[in-house]
Amino acid sequence: MKVRPLGARLLIKPIQEEKRTEGGIVLPDTAKEKPMKAEVVAVGNLEDSDVDIVVGDKVIFSKYSGTEIKIEDDDYIIIDVEDILAKIED
Amino acid sequence: MKVRPLGARLLIKPIQEEKRTEGGIVLPDTAKEKPMKAEVVAVGNLEDSDVDIVVGDKVIFSKYSGTEIKIEDDDYIIIDVEDILAKIED
Amino acid sequence: MKVRPLGARLLIKPIQEEKRTEGGIVLPDTAKEKPMKAEVVAVGNLEDSDVDIVVGDKVIFSKYSGTEIKIEDDDYIIIDVEDILAKIED
Amino acid sequence: MKVRPLGARLLIKPIQEEKRTEGGIVLPDTAKEKPMKAEVVAVGNLEDSDVDIVVGDKVIFSKYSGTEIKIEDDDYIIIDVEDILAKIED
Amino acid sequence: MKVRPLGARLLIKPIQEEKRTEGGIVLPDTAKEKPMKAEVVAVGNLEDSDVDIVVGDKVIFSKYSGTEIKIEDDDYIIIDVEDILAKIED
Amino acid sequence: MKVRPLGARLLIKPIQEEKRTEGGIVLPDTAKEKPMKAEVVAVGNLEDSDVDIVVGDKVIFSKYSGTEIKIEDDDYIIIDVEDILAKIED
Amino acid sequence: MKVRPLGARLLIKPIQEEKRTEGGIVLPDTAKEKPMKAEVVAVGNLEDSDVDIVVGDKVIFSKYSGTEIKIEDDDYIIIDVEDILAKIED
Repeated sequence: MKVRPLGARLLIKPIQEEKRTEGGIVLPDTAKEKPMKAEVVAVGNLEDSDVDIVVGDKVIFSKYSGTEIKIEDDDYIIIDVEDILAKIED
Repeated sequence: MKVRPLGARLLIKPIQEEKRTEGGIVLPDTAKEKPMKAEVVAVGNLEDSDVDIVVGDKVIFSKYSGTEIKIEDDDYIIIDVEDILAKIED
Repeated sequence: MKVRPLGARLLIKPIQEEKRTEGGIVLPDTAKEKPMKAEVVAVGNLEDSDVDIVVGDKVIFSKYSGTEIKIEDDDYIIIDVEDILAKIED
Repeated sequence: MKVRPLGARLLIKPIQEEKRTEGGIVLPDTAKEKPMKAEVVAVGNLEDSDVDIVVGDKVIFSKYSGTEIKIEDDDYIIIDVEDILAKIED
Repeated sequence: MKVRPLGARLLIKPIQEEKRTEGGIVLPDTAKEKPMKAEVVAVGNLEDSDVDIVVGDKVIFSKYSGTEIKIEDDDYIIIDVEDILAKIED
Repeated sequence: MKVRPLGARLLIKPIQEEKRTEGGIVLPDTAKEKPMKAEVVAVGNLEDSDVDIVVGDKVIFSKYSGTEIKIEDDDYIIIDVEDILAKIED
Repeated sequence: MKVRPLGARLLIKPIQEEKRTEGGIVLPDTAKEKPMKAEVVAVGNLEDSDVDIVVGDKVIFSKYSGTEIKIEDDDYIIIDVEDILAKIED
C-alpha cells in the first residue's frame, strides 16, 4: 500500500528517540515525551509553498498537529507543510 | 436513489477494516477505531481544486469531518475535498 | 403567505421519512433521527453561487444548519445554499 | 424621536403573533416563542447590499440577532441587513 | 484634559435616562438598564467610514462594546464607529 | 538596555494615578483600577498605520492588551498600535 | 545537529536571568518567571517580513508563543517572527 498526500501535505514517520535515565535505564514508551522529529516519506503538492522539503529530509514538526495513520502496523502522520517547523541537518 | 454532491464535495463510502486480535478473534464494530479509509463514490465540482480525484479512488480522510448519511441502509459520508488527506495506491 | 428568501438562501421543506422497525412498527417522531432530506420550495439569489438548484429539487442538507420557521403550521427551513450538501436524483 | 440606522442596518418592529391553544385560549407573552417576523420601519445604507428592502416590508429575521431597543415604550430591533432571511409577500 | 480618539473611533458620553416607575418613583442607578444612548463628544478619523457623524450627534450604540474611561470623574466610552447602530433625530 | 519595538508596536510606560478616597487617604496599589494611561517611550514601524504617535505622547490604551515587561525594575508594556485608543492632550 | 527554521520562523535560545531576592538569595528555576528574552540562533526566510533580525540579536518574545524543543540537552524555541516583540540594544 502506497499513500500519496494530497495538496500541501506531507507523509512523515515520527522518529522515536531512545531515552535513558541517568542510570542507563531505557524508558518505556509511556514515559517518553511525544516525539517531534520525523523523516519525510512522501510529499504532496508544495508548488504554492516556498519551502524546499524532499523525501528523506529529517524535520521537526509542531506537536499535536497532523493526523496519525497506521500503514502496515507502522505509525505515520499526514501533516500540512506549514506545520513543519524546521529541517534538521546533521 | 442517486446522490450528487454539490460544490467541492465528494460522496465517499468508508471502508471498515476487519480487525482480528492476535488470537484471531474478529472484533465487533464497537471495539474498532473509526475508519479513515474510504472509496470515492461520486464527485462534485472540483474545478477550483488542484486535486485529482476520480470515482473509484481509495482515499484517507480526516477523522470526524464530513456529514454521515444513509443511502439504502449503507453508510456514506459527504465530505469537502480539502478533508481528503491522501490517496491510497496499491 | 409567500416567503421569498433573500440573498444566497433557499426555503426548503424537510422530508420526514417513515421509519419502521423490523417488526413493521412505525416509530413516532421522537424516536426518529433529525431529517436531512428536503424539497426546495423557493430560491433566493444564487447568481454568485456556482450551484444549480431549482424549485422542486430534492436535496440533502447539513444537519443543524439553517433557521426553522413555521408557515401555516408546516415546518420549513431557510438555509444558506452552501449548507446544501447534495442533490438527490431518483 | 426618530431613529435612523447607520450602515447596512435596518430598524424593524417585531410582529407578535396571537397564539391560541386548540381550546381557543390566548397564551400570554411568556408562553409564546420569540417572534421572528417584523415590519421594516427605517432603512440605513443598503447601497452595498444586493437586497431590495423598503420601509413597510414584512420580513423574517434571524432569531437572537440584532439589538433590541425601546422607543417610546415600544420594542424595536436594529439589525444587520444580512440577518434578514426572507421577505413575506401576502 | 482633552481626549482625541485615534483611528475610526469616537468618544461618546452615555446619556443616563431617568426612569420612573408607574407610581412616579425615580429608580436608583442599579435598578436601571445599561444605557445605550450617548452624545458624541469627539471624533477620530472617519475618512474610511461611510457614516456621517459629527460632535453633538445623539447616537444609539451597541451595548457592552467600547472601552469605558473616566475623565475628570465623568464616564465616557471610546468606541469603534461600527458599533454605533443609529443616530437619533428629535 | 534599550528596547526597540518591532513592527507596528509601541513601548509604553503606564501612568499610575494617585487615587485618594474622599477622606484624603491614598489607596495602595491593590485597591486601584488597572491603569489605562501611558506615555509613549519608543515607537516601532508605524508606516502602514495612519495614526500619528510620537515619543512623549500620552495615550489611553485598551486594558489587558499588550505584553508587560520589566526594564531595570520598571514596568512597561509592548503594545500594538491598534490597541492605542486615544491621545491625551492637556 | 543543526536546526534550520522553515518559513518566517526563528530559532531562539531563551536567556534565563539570574534573580536574587533582596537578601541576595538566588532563586531556583521554579520560582522564576518564564523568561521572555532570547538570543537569535538561526533565521528562516524573512523576505516577506519587514523586520530586520539577524543571528546574534537579543530579542523580547511573546510569552507562551512558539514551540519548545531540546537540542543536545539545551532548550530552544522555534517561533514565528511576528511573535518577536522587540529587539534589545545594550
